Amino acid sequence: MRLSKRIKSMEESPIRKLVPYSEAAKANGKHVYHLNIGQPDIETPTAFMESIRNYNEKVIAYTFSQGMPELIKSIISYYEKYDIYYEEDEVLVTNGASEGLLFTIIAIADSGDEILVPEPFYANYNGFNRAVDVNITPITCNAEEGFHLPPKEIIEKSINSRTRAILLSNPSNPTGVVYTKEEILMLCQIAKEHNLFIISDEVYREFVYDDLEFMSFGNIEGVQEHVILIDSISKRYSACGARIGSIATKNKELIKQILKLCQGRLCAPTLEQIGAIELYKTDSKYLEEINKEYKKRRDIVYNFLKDMPGVVCKKPTGAFYVVVKLPIDDAENFAIWLLKDFDINNETLMITPAESFYATPGLGKNEARIAYILNEDDLTKAMEILKKGLELYPNKTI
Amino acid sequence: MRLSKRIKSMEESPIRKLVPYSEAAKANGKHVYHLNIGQPDIETPTAFMESIRNYNEKVIAYTFSQGMPELIKSIISYYEKYDIYYEEDEVLVTNGASEGLLFTIIAIADSGDEILVPEPFYANYNGFNRAVDVNITPITCNAEEGFHLPPKEIIEKSINSRTRAILLSNPSNPTGVVYTKEEILMLCQIAKEHNLFIISDEVYREFVYDDLEFMSFGNIEGVQEHVILIDSISKRYSACGARIGSIATKNKELIKQILKLCQGRLCAPTLEQIGAIELYKTDSKYLEEINKEYKKRRDIVYNFLKDMPGVVCKKPTGAFYVVVKLPIDDAENFAIWLLKDFDINNETLMITPAESFYATPGLGKNEARIAYILNEDDLTKAMEILKKGLELYPNKTI
Repeated sequence: MRLSKRIKSMEESPIRKLVPYSEAAKANGKHVYHLNIGQPDIETPTAFMESIRNYNEKVIAYTFSQGMPELIKSIISYYEKYDIYYEEDEVLVTNGASEGLLFTIIAIADSGDEILVPEPFYANYNGFNRAVDVNITPITCNAEEGFHLPPKEIIEKSINSRTRAILLSNPSNPTGVVYTKEEILMLCQIAKEHNLFIISDEVYREFVYDDLEFMSFGNIEGVQEHVILIDSISKRYSACGARIGSIATKNKELIKQILKLCQGRLCAPTLEQIGAIELYKTDSKYLEEINKEYKKRRDIVYNFLKDMPGVVCKKPTGAFYVVVKLPIDDAENFAIWLLKDFDINNETLMITPAESFYATPGLGKNEARIAYILNEDDLTKAMEILKKGLELYPNKTI
Repeated sequence: MRLSKRIKSMEESPIRKLVPYSEAAKANGKHVYHLNIGQPDIETPTAFMESIRNYNEKVIAYTFSQGMPELIKSIISYYEKYDIYYEEDEVLVTNGASEGLLFTIIAIADSGDEILVPEPFYANYNGFNRAVDVNITPITCNAEEGFHLPPKEIIEKSINSRTRAILLSNPSNPTGVVYTKEEILMLCQIAKEHNLFIISDEVYREFVYDDLEFMSFGNIEGVQEHVILIDSISKRYSACGARIGSIATKNKELIKQILKLCQGRLCAPTLEQIGAIELYKTDSKYLEEINKEYKKRRDIVYNFLKDMPGVVCKKPTGAFYVVVKLPIDDAENFAIWLLKDFDINNETLMITPAESFYATPGLGKNEARIAYILNEDDLTKAMEILKKGLELYPNKTI
């Protein structure tokens, strides 16, 4: 039996590819600092487990396919704090942002249609689109400009009759860029002129530093029929394993159509919804503390990077990632070398090669994503190892 | 913006369509017996919540994309009781059987490919296939023959170069048929001769009555590279809301490919996996008790049905459903009439019209699915109402 072309065209996770090397390093007694994954070390608010522990139904039953009404209310209240207003038939609870994205793509694009995505992008965007035969058309951004968007006329050159939407994460995984108000308004303008949806993955909404203003697509008037907000509790409340996300849009017809997909998979997990109801009510102090913590980590990482010879990296302002251009031949080779052939006092680190964050062949070969999800001490040690590694790596380009 | 053709081609859930009528009936003070849904009233084993309550990790983190190793072991041990042997790289944990089916279809079929499915079938099979542009080719079965399969040569007439798999549920939702050993062997023969996968949804494995032998596709030698078993804890352990299912196959390459889809959605929900580890260890006595309970319910339903004039219904032997042919013009009209215009002492019932369980246009119009998921007393009352309803319905055909 042959397998489908679409599944074979999907790339393996770039993180997973390196796992055998990190496992081997650990087996050899090396300590590995993981700057390659987006799993925060912050504690999940205790209200999550408390509400689940208090759940006393005798039968763990299906919930409504659109999500538990209480959770939908909780999500609506959360958005209201940001002056974004949704009604109860404008929100769907999903199995993480992942399912929200997959369902949205199925609902707005047919096989062979195209979706514009600023590159480098979250690698799984590629996977979701491949799985359902939709093509990503990249809007290329670069490290020299801090991964901000090119001008309108450049973006518009990539639009054709099969283009259905613009998909982006803001703040961005993997680049850490926070798009400016001007960029957001430009994309809204493009969406209106070319009749496109905007799928905005804003799961890092609270991870914006330096008192920068964050502009959500949910705040722009006159374009809300185009805008689809994807959300998740994973990063914001450090509840990655809960797999609770949502789709929100003022386009009620779209919600009605996606609901058919939600009905097909019956419901999101009941207990994790129970917990999520409380998470969305978390005091804003919790988020402010976390923001401070990540800002400190961002500073550590950036202060190291800016002084490394040959490294290209604008100061990232959001999420907890940065993509850096390194003075090396190939980031995958470098990542393997770090794990296999290098250590300081038997310690090394793991980074993610950035090539698979690009749709344009050849781009990102000498770039890597660094996730700053470790505490200050560990992060400092990891960055020192990276600095030394770059000095000693045999295939440097400077 | 236009929505995709595929989403628009998906039908709304046949159950959902009737909800406004049942809501209106309830608002008018009528009691509605729900024979339309597959939500069991049986209590979930307490081990599920106990293990979750004892989970004390400070961070609700991602688990492995393939599932927690402990849960995979638990699933493997469960299968061993049935002489079905899987290794750890032959099982993937999914968000319910639903995701297992969706991922399997994506991995084995491209846009425009075909999958053979005995009809009437679980309506969501249609949804999963529509969502990813795969076509269902029906193998028509009928009430007169208790929904058993037609002969090999009839099935083979529907196979062409785009056919990729045979998909079926056994025991069957919605018909309640349990396929015979001869039928299972015939399908294996077809799969081998025509190089097809067999996707066997066996979530009702323990719901087989009358001491009938249940033959799993997992038990047939010489065909295991073709066989994909889909499983779920939803019905077996009455944990529908937990959304934990699995894909198991000896075809390691297929597992490797589907794992890419699992990585794309990161992981199944952590807490529900913790609970599921214990559920798969549930003492077989629990399942025997439930089997006895459902057999009693099946008997109540069947004893009513067999004596109703003009009703066609062979004794169902598995799951907790039956599809019956009714002496009426249109099952949807009849279902609405029951809710809107009929009651006995202010009580009525809700059934599911079967038309959307068929891919062949026009079939199933005078058929309905009855789920026997109520306790004996309620079920008896509901069947009495159905009997009287059939006598008094104005658009009878006898």
